[in-house]
Amino acid sequence: MNRRIIVYMVGNIVKLEAVLLVLPLLVSLCYHELNSVNAFALSIIIATAVGFLMTTVAKPTSKVFYAREGFIIVTFAWIFLSLLGSLPFLLSTEIPDFFDAFFETVSGFTTTGASILGDVESMSRGILFWRSFTHWLGGMGVLVLIMAILPSDSGRAIHIMRAEMAGPVIGKIVPKIKETAKILYFIYFVLTILEIAFLLFGGMPLFDSAVHALGTAGTGGFGIKADSIAGYSPYLQWVITAFMVLFGVNFNLFYLLLLRKFKTVFTNRELWFYFGIMLGAAAIITYSIYPIYQNPSDSIRHSCFQVASIVSTTGYSTADFNCWPDLAKGVIFILMFLGGCAGSTAGGLKLSRVIIMLKAIRKDIRQLLHPRSVAVVRYEGKKLDNAVMNSVTTYFALYILLIAATFLILSFEPAFDVQSNLTASVTCCNNVGPGFGKVGPMEGFGAYSGFSKLILTFAMLFGRLEIYPILLAVYPRTWTKK
Amino acid sequence: MNRRIIVYMVGNIVKLEAVLLVLPLLVSLCYHELNSVNAFALSIIIATAVGFLMTTVAKPTSKVFYAREGFIIVTFAWIFLSLLGSLPFLLSTEIPDFFDAFFETVSGFTTTGASILGDVESMSRGILFWRSFTHWLGGMGVLVLIMAILPSDSGRAIHIMRAEMAGPVIGKIVPKIKETAKILYFIYFVLTILEIAFLLFGGMPLFDSAVHALGTAGTGGFGIKADSIAGYSPYLQWVITAFMVLFGVNFNLFYLLLLRKFKTVFTNRELWFYFGIMLGAAAIITYSIYPIYQNPSDSIRHSCFQVASIVSTTGYSTADFNCWPDLAKGVIFILMFLGGCAGSTAGGLKLSRVIIMLKAIRKDIRQLLHPRSVAVVRYEGKKLDNAVMNSVTTYFALYILLIAATFLILSFEPAFDVQSNLTASVTCCNNVGPGFGKVGPMEGFGAYSGFSKLILTFAMLFGRLEIYPILLAVYPRTWTKK
Repeated sequence: MNRRIIVYMVGNIVKLEAVLLVLPLLVSLCYHELNSVNAFALSIIIATAVGFLMTTVAKPTSKVFYAREGFIIVTFAWIFLSLLGSLPFLLSTEIPDFFDAFFETVSGFTTTGASILGDVESMSRGILFWRSFTHWLGGMGVLVLIMAILPSDSGRAIHIMRAEMAGPVIGKIVPKIKETAKILYFIYFVLTILEIAFLLFGGMPLFDSAVHALGTAGTGGFGIKADSIAGYSPYLQWVITAFMVLFGVNFNLFYLLLLRKFKTVFTNRELWFYFGIMLGAAAIITYSIYPIYQNPSDSIRHSCFQVASIVSTTGYSTADFNCWPDLAKGVIFILMFLGGCAGSTAGGLKLSRVIIMLKAIRKDIRQLLHPRSVAVVRYEGKKLDNAVMNSVTTYFALYILLIAATFLILSFEPAFDVQSNLTASVTCCNNVGPGFGKVGPMEGFGAYSGFSKLILTFAMLFGRLEIYPILLAVYPRTWTKK
Repeated sequence: MNRRIIVYMVGNIVKLEAVLLVLPLLVSLCYHELNSVNAFALSIIIATAVGFLMTTVAKPTSKVFYAREGFIIVTFAWIFLSLLGSLPFLLSTEIPDFFDAFFETVSGFTTTGASILGDVESMSRGILFWRSFTHWLGGMGVLVLIMAILPSDSGRAIHIMRAEMAGPVIGKIVPKIKETAKILYFIYFVLTILEIAFLLFGGMPLFDSAVHALGTAGTGGFGIKADSIAGYSPYLQWVITAFMVLFGVNFNLFYLLLLRKFKTVFTNRELWFYFGIMLGAAAIITYSIYPIYQNPSDSIRHSCFQVASIVSTTGYSTADFNCWPDLAKGVIFILMFLGGCAGSTAGGLKLSRVIIMLKAIRKDIRQLLHPRSVAVVRYEGKKLDNAVMNSVTTYFALYILLIAATFLILSFEPAFDVQSNLTASVTCCNNVGPGFGKVGPMEGFGAYSGFSKLILTFAMLFGRLEIYPILLAVYPRTWTKK
C-alpha cells in the first residue's frame, strides 16, 4: 500500500480545486457581490494551504500504485473536494449549516441536483455559479480533469479512471489515458459552449444560459429559479431537452462521429436502447398527462422534457410531476433506476448494465433448456465474458442493497412518509435529484434532519462512484494486507 | 420433446384434484350447504372427466423426459389446477366473475392470500374450506404430493421437483425422490395437526382452527374474518405467530431434528439469518408502534405477529399495518421482498438467495483488491460454485424485472396510486398477500379491473414457480428445437 501517493494525489486535487474556485470568484467580482468575493477568496486560501500541506508532507518516494490505491484516491479526493467545496457556502453564510452545505456540495459534484435550499432565487450569483460549476466538474470527473491537464509520468492512471468513470466496461478511446481524458474534456467543453449558444439565441440571459448549460452538461439539475425550467419559453425547454439527451450518450460515440465512423455509432445497441426507452416512456407519459394540459404540444413537451431529465439523471423539471397522474409517476419511478448510457455524464444503473443483465437472463434460460451447451453471448460486436455478466448482476444486487439500506435508515425520520423516503433514496443513489411527495420537484430536501442529510450525502457519493471505491476504502483488508 | 408425457402428467394432476375436492364436499355436507355441495359435486365430475380425457388421449409411449418437460408440466399443471379449482367458486356463484375466481384460486394455490372478496364472512363453510385447502396443497406443491402417493416408475421426477419447489438449491433429503416427498408431506401433516391442536386448546372452534392451520402451514393467509386474526385472543395470535415462523423454516431441518442431528441444524446459516432478521425487524417495529398501543405486550405481540406473517409470506394480520407509522411500514416493505428459508412453504426471494448474494458481493470486493487471487466461497459447509452465485444474482435481476413489469402494467389502472400498485406488485410476486394503500390488510384486490387481476394472477404464478418454468413454457425454442 503506497499511502504517500494517496495523500499526494488528493493534495493535488485540492490544489486544482483552489484554482477552479477562481472562476466563481470572478463571477462574484463581476456582480459586485462583496460577501461572496470574500468567501471565495478565503476558500481559495484554505484550499491552497491544505493542498500544499498534503503534497509537501507526503511527497511520494514511488509513483507505482495499483487498483486499491486508485479506489482510495478517488474516494478521498471526492470527500475532500466536497468538504472544501462547501466552504464558500459556509463562509458566505448563504448556507450556514454544515450538513446542508456538505449535502449541497456533494449533490453538486455527484451531479444529483437534490437541494436543501428553500429560496434559491435569493442566493448570490457567485454562489449559484459555483453550485452549477460543481455539476460540470463532477460530471466528467475531477480526476479525469487532472489527468488531462497535469503532466503524468505514471502509466497507472487507468486505475483512477476506472474508479471514477461510471459504467461496467470503461474503454480507453485512444491508447494513452492522458489523450483519452483530453478528448473527453474537449467534447464536453464544445457541447457545453454549443448549449450556451443555443440558449442565448432563444433569449435566455448569459448568466442563466451558462448556469443551465453547466447543469445540463454534468446531468446535474441545480436550477436558479424556484420552478426550475418551468418559467422559460418552449424553445428553451426543447433546447435543454435535446442537450439532456445528448449528455446521456456515451462520449465515445461523439469521438467516433468526429472520426466519421458512422456505422459503429449507428449500430450501437445501448444507443438504440436509450432512444427506445425514452420514446416509449414519453409516449406513455404524454397519454397519461394529456387530460391535464388538454393540448398535444404542451403534453408532448412536458413529457419529453421530463423523460430526458430523468433518464439522463439531470433532474430539471418544467412541471410538478408530483401532481401528475399515477401512470406518469409510475413510469418516472421506473426510469429513476435506469440512468443513461455508460461513459456519459449520466448517473444511475446505466443502460449497458440493463442490457447485459437481460443477456445474462436469456443465457440462463437457454442454459436451462440445454444444460450442457456453452452459449456465446455477444454485446456491441464483442464476446461478452461470463465474468463481466457476473460482475454486472452482482453489482445490481449491491445497488439494490444500497437503496434498501438508505431507505431503511431514512424511515426513522418521523415526519416523512414511505413514498418520500423511498423516492429520496432512489433519486439520491441514482444521482437524479427530485423524487415524489415531500421531495418532489417543487420541494426540497431541507426538511430532513442533519443525520438523514448525511446519509443521503453518502448515498449520492456511493451512487456516483458506483459503490465499490467507497466500500473498499472502508474495508479493513484494503489497509492491512499486502 | 415428449409431448404425451406432459398431457398425461397434467391429466393425472387434474384427477388428483378431483379426489382432493371430495374433502370440501364433505365439509359442505356436514354444514348442510346444499348450494356448495352441488358446486363441488359438479366440479368433481368435470375434473374427473377432463383428467381421464387427458390421460387416455395422451397415453405416453415413453416415460423418459428431461428438464424442459419438467418445467412445462409444472407450468401447465398449475394453470389447469387453478382453472378447475376455480369451478366451485363459479358454480356456487359465491364468486360469480371468472377473473375474480381465477385470481382467488391462484392466490390460494400460490399461497399468496390476496383476496378479491368484499365480505368474506358471508361465504359458505365449504367454499371457505376449499379456499384454505388450496393454500395447504400449493404450499408444499401438488406435484410433490403426486410423487409421494402415486407409484413412480420413472427416475425423472427430480425434474419436476426442482421446478416446483422453491429456493436456489434443492436437495433431496434421501436418495429417492418418492421417499423425500413422503417425508416432507409427513412433517407437513404432523405440524398442521399440531397447530390445530394448539388452536383448539385456546378455545378456537374446530372449523376456524382447521382453516387457519391450513392457511398457516402453506404460508398462505386467507382468513375467514373481515379483520383476519385481529379478533382472536392473544394466546391464539401467539400460536399462529409461532407456527408461521416454523413453516418458514427449511423442512430439511425438521427431518434432521428427527434424526437427532442437532449440530447440523444449529449451525445452519440461513436459520440464524432468518431469526436475526425477524428479531431485528420486530424490535424496530415495536419501537415504532409503541406510541399507538401504549403498552409493551400489545406492541410486541402485534409487531412479532406481523413480522412473522410477512417474512414467512403468510399475510395474516392482527392490526391494520397500513395505519402504522411510516417507520414500521418501511420495514414491512423491505421484508416483503425477502421471504422465508429455501425448502419451506414460504414464498419470496428466499433468505438463502440473499445470503448467497451477500457472499457474491464480498467475493467481488475481494477480487477487486486481489485481482489474480482465486477465492473459495463456502456456504452451509460446502464450497459454493461460481455457477450457483451467478444463477442467483441473475435470478435476482429477473425477479426485480418481474416486479417492475407488473408495476408498470398496473400503473395503467386509473383509480390506483403508485404506493398501492407498487406494493400490490411486490406482494403478489412474493406471494405475501396484503400491501399498503388500497391493497392494505383490511382492504382487498377486488377493485382492480379484470385485466389487472389477470396480470396479478400471473405475477403470483411467476412468483410461486420462481419465474423460469413459465418463461420456458412460453419460450418458442422450448417447443421447436430438439
